[in-house]
Amino acid sequence: MSRHLTEIGEQELIDLAVGCTVLAGGGGGDPRVGLLMALNAIRNNGPVRLIELDDLDDEELIVPAGMIGAPTVMIEKIPSGLESAVICDTIATRLGKPVSALMPLEMGGLNGVLPVAWSATTGLPMVDGDLMGRAFPELQMCTPHLYGIPAWPGVVVDERSQAILFEPADNVWFERLARTAVSTLGGCACSGIYPMTAAVARTPLIPRTVSDAIHIGSVIRNAGDEPLRELDRAVALYPLMTGKVVDVERHTAGGFVRGSAIVEGIEGDRGRLARIEFQNENLIVLEDGEALATVPDIITLLDRYTAHGIVTEQIRYGQRVVIAAFRAPEQWRTPAGLDVVGPRAFGYDVDYIPVEVAHARIG
Amino acid sequence: MSRHLTEIGEQELIDLAVGCTVLAGGGGGDPRVGLLMALNAIRNNGPVRLIELDDLDDEELIVPAGMIGAPTVMIEKIPSGLESAVICDTIATRLGKPVSALMPLEMGGLNGVLPVAWSATTGLPMVDGDLMGRAFPELQMCTPHLYGIPAWPGVVVDERSQAILFEPADNVWFERLARTAVSTLGGCACSGIYPMTAAVARTPLIPRTVSDAIHIGSVIRNAGDEPLRELDRAVALYPLMTGKVVDVERHTAGGFVRGSAIVEGIEGDRGRLARIEFQNENLIVLEDGEALATVPDIITLLDRYTAHGIVTEQIRYGQRVVIAAFRAPEQWRTPAGLDVVGPRAFGYDVDYIPVEVAHARIG
Repeated sequence: MSRHLTEIGEQELIDLAVGCTVLAGGGGGDPRVGLLMALNAIRNNGPVRLIELDDLDDEELIVPAGMIGAPTVMIEKIPSGLESAVICDTIATRLGKPVSALMPLEMGGLNGVLPVAWSATTGLPMVDGDLMGRAFPELQMCTPHLYGIPAWPGVVVDERSQAILFEPADNVWFERLARTAVSTLGGCACSGIYPMTAAVARTPLIPRTVSDAIHIGSVIRNAGDEPLRELDRAVALYPLMTGKVVDVERHTAGGFVRGSAIVEGIEGDRGRLARIEFQNENLIVLEDGEALATVPDIITLLDRYTAHGIVTEQIRYGQRVVIAAFRAPEQWRTPAGLDVVGPRAFGYDVDYIPVEVAHARIG
Repeated sequence: MSRHLTEIGEQELIDLAVGCTVLAGGGGGDPRVGLLMALNAIRNNGPVRLIELDDLDDEELIVPAGMIGAPTVMIEKIPSGLESAVICDTIATRLGKPVSALMPLEMGGLNGVLPVAWSATTGLPMVDGDLMGRAFPELQMCTPHLYGIPAWPGVVVDERSQAILFEPADNVWFERLARTAVSTLGGCACSGIYPMTAAVARTPLIPRTVSDAIHIGSVIRNAGDEPLRELDRAVALYPLMTGKVVDVERHTAGGFVRGSAIVEGIEGDRGRLARIEFQNENLIVLEDGEALATVPDIITLLDRYTAHGIVTEQIRYGQRVVIAAFRAPEQWRTPAGLDVVGPRAFGYDVDYIPVEVAHARIG
């Protein structure tokens, strides 16, 4: 785990955007729009204060926030910037107490940087951590769900400031209801869910992931000719194959983007062929019908030369990539975690084999 | 308009259930389930107080409530009885003031009687009036919409007490978002929308429709051998055709029931054939390709012998019916009203011709 940073300025933000694509597992949305919004917000309002839970009183309220929906839509359906105020107001009114801090829902792509914009515009600090330690496609795939913590009162807000507050029977119902609302709103929207006091957040929080992502971004920025090797030093990287993207199939429906990419081996992997399947995030890598890696471990296509992560909606024919895997946060590797985000939760009838068991590190 | 009643006991409730099917235009859901719930609630809690707007202070809050969705689903997806408490709590919390009275959203079928159950269980009085003066299938088809009064904060609640609070950009967005939520909830749910103070409600309210429906029910109950003639004395009735249902086609999707029925003339109408098309409510009656009557006028299939209304989900082969039309409330017959609920609002490229212009009364 990295040293906890206390502030996000422009450089940290740029590093964060890069780091978020590496540990996102292909999801969380392309960070470009969020990065521009956050840069603008920081220029207008100054750096964002990054806090730890101990900086808050036990009873203070934290709202995890991010976009939900299909990342393919997020590229062009751009937030207005007013969503965070609506999210905070709606939840604060329902709970009868003010929001003390924001936090990223997931540490991936757009959703790693957009909360920075929201913290800057609302003046609220941002908690250094998140609820996935990567990105996942569905709302019950957040660590609080493992501890029976409800995702509600949770709110979905679109760029017209239309707010929908959900108080469902359970977190899976929340996913179902929010997903159809998001689909009706055009395929993506902003959300604030799993509002928690600092005391409650202590158990589910995956801490310091914001600092971690900024650290990864800065390592890649400062790496010389071998960014993949430098990246492996910062975070254990298990390369599955080096190759060229030769086919991509993608469809956007029901508030998700689903599809697959075929990668043909190059360099030392010539003659191999791998297929990556995704639902917003990369779920599985298959070779000759066998799984090389699966969720919950983090599967990311890294640019062969820059080590930047490639989000699923930006996979394109001809890209030279390293299919890389990273260990999932430990909370997801328990039996309870695997029930929610293991391969079977996504319909794959295979057992989860931890990536470090099946593969060697880059060195 | 009838004399305003001040209380709904068991007899009034039974009459209300019958009256609601006559003026519903085929919609609002089969009243049976709502009637049983309301009877039970009245037996446990005593009669419901029926009030007029002048019985409230200007600033007191009224919540119009009813089920939304497909009436075919309402027959078997039964409310828990807890929905009204959730509706009132959610709206009161959002607006920061208590709910002083309930009111039927529409005067039709189930939706005319269910608010009686809710008033009895919450102990709140019920306003003598509604926002349609009949039943219509969509949420923007309420009189407040004609005056720019927002339907939100509005809430949808299902029998699991799952609550969804909507604050959309306009009433048409509300319809769109609530409809997909209801569809996800299984096809129907309870709702509280267009919360208004008594002062605001004064303009859109269609007054005394609860008393009117009870009056109609009691006229039918007390009628001798000619209930249709008695009914015509209570409310001007324009009979379009007497016939037998020879075909019904119905499909439930997207939170509506849509379909059509074919009626073959009997008695004096032998040789004629009429087609009725519906979206929850009857929209148009066609004969030889020409419209005999259209929305917003109220088109109801009345039982040939009892003069009870037949809701669209209960139309069955072999029923002997009178296809009857009634004048719509005047608010719907203005150009602004016709924009929202005229034949073109439902996709029919025909002009609205008031039923009293085209047809004679029963006598």
